Amino acid sequence: MKISIIGLGLIGGSYALSLKQRFKDLTLYGWDHNEAHNLAARKRNIIDVSCRSLEEAFEKGDWILLAIPVNTIASSLPGMLDTVASHQLIIDFGSTKEQICKVVARHKRRDQFIAAHPIAGTEYSGPSAAFSTLYQDKVMIVCEPEKTKADFLKTFNDQCNALGMTTVYLGAAEHDLHLAYVSHLSHIIAFGLSHTVLQKEVSATKILDLAGSGLASTVRLAKSSPDMWTPIFINNRGAILESLDVYIEKINDFKELLEDSNVPGIKAFLEKGREIKKILK
Amino acid sequence: MKISIIGLGLIGGSYALSLKQRFKDLTLYGWDHNEAHNLAARKRNIIDVSCRSLEEAFEKGDWILLAIPVNTIASSLPGMLDTVASHQLIIDFGSTKEQICKVVARHKRRDQFIAAHPIAGTEYSGPSAAFSTLYQDKVMIVCEPEKTKADFLKTFNDQCNALGMTTVYLGAAEHDLHLAYVSHLSHIIAFGLSHTVLQKEVSATKILDLAGSGLASTVRLAKSSPDMWTPIFINNRGAILESLDVYIEKINDFKELLEDSNVPGIKAFLEKGREIKKILK
Repeated sequence: MKISIIGLGLIGGSYALSLKQRFKDLTLYGWDHNEAHNLAARKRNIIDVSCRSLEEAFEKGDWILLAIPVNTIASSLPGMLDTVASHQLIIDFGSTKEQICKVVARHKRRDQFIAAHPIAGTEYSGPSAAFSTLYQDKVMIVCEPEKTKADFLKTFNDQCNALGMTTVYLGAAEHDLHLAYVSHLSHIIAFGLSHTVLQKEVSATKILDLAGSGLASTVRLAKSSPDMWTPIFINNRGAILESLDVYIEKINDFKELLEDSNVPGIKAFLEKGREIKKILK
Repeated sequence: MKISIIGLGLIGGSYALSLKQRFKDLTLYGWDHNEAHNLAARKRNIIDVSCRSLEEAFEKGDWILLAIPVNTIASSLPGMLDTVASHQLIIDFGSTKEQICKVVARHKRRDQFIAAHPIAGTEYSGPSAAFSTLYQDKVMIVCEPEKTKADFLKTFNDQCNALGMTTVYLGAAEHDLHLAYVSHLSHIIAFGLSHTVLQKEVSATKILDLAGSGLASTVRLAKSSPDMWTPIFINNRGAILESLDVYIEKINDFKELLEDSNVPGIKAFLEKGREIKKILK
């Protein structure tokens, strides 16, 4: 089988590396709009064949995997499905799913598309950040599985399982709402914290001396790629604004408790927040 | 030399373990107000001698190390200095320093006290969380070093260096203000995020399926001990409220950009936030 990977960054590159490690009978084609990424992917042997254009990559693959920003997926997917051959399957790995599912909802070749989202990533980006174990023991969300041809879906599920992933089915709107709370919000918080610390701490040495591992952990996601995250935030605007309102309310609740020097209130707030321990070990 | 450690949790217990590993000629006495901690510390061989009372621990030590909540340090330190023998030194490891320094500022035995803060910790607490390498390559802040007898200060500095730590001197008020930004705020953010996620995600399975490592990292500090953190927040109320105001403003800035679907604005916000990369690798 031939798989073409469009977008050779952390997500696409790592998927390529994990496929290479697990399957010996695959030929991996790849293309990235960033020429430096194409070069780096060739150098690191992430793919077998480096394509010269999106069109070439598209034609070569039995499967075409889109690991590119969500706005580009949403704008290019309908045209791609227009020209797809009957044996071809398109899979997207975008972090939001509702809009992407919507733009092809009534497409006559909707059954040759899988709307997927691997719950995996790091704060680093580009082919140099890719590694073969990124997807090990992770979850692959598939939205609207009933809209994809059954044999495509089965083969994709089998491939995910072979890479050590568990597939979970979820509605596209539900996916986006939950992801706003458990992923997108964390990124906004990290960027906001980074702004706050950078405004106060003009001296980098002071940050390094005084900040323990706590800041590093809380602010980690602020290292994430703006090119990837701006479209996600725009794309999932409604759900993110909902989660942001809840979050701002909670932070203001704490602020009020502190303004009042309300010791039992603060302690109760922390005790309740600490219940996350039961879920995230 | 004999060192008495008051408070055998993560901070006191880890300091004991690292002392044991590095120095063979020390006898470590220990006491904790929580009897389960005393038992656990004995079981894990964290200390050599388990004292029956605070008074016993206080009398035995040449050095008395206070690794207890900051409110308890502030309330008990003046009385302790009242009764300290001329060869004894008290060191506190509290996370806030201004109030603690203030309550003994004019004490006649102020020179037998070191106001210290090791910039180290994890989200876990109690003697079971203690480990011998917690302080390796970390910074030990010492506030108002000029107020401590020079030979005490030198011996303490040497000990810190022997444990792999770098000592940094800082004013107490300056310490508290900076710590609000680079540590205390991160904890509040994590607790607020935890509240938000827990309110939305009643199903723990859903959180586990959908949350990547990003949430785990951003929310990690919400596992921290409310008994330790409530007094820190109260104690450093002014500086924390200042940092919270700046943070809430930044989060609201982002919210406004998102409400306006301001793509260049969001991208610029993320690019600026991402500059933390240059400081925290």
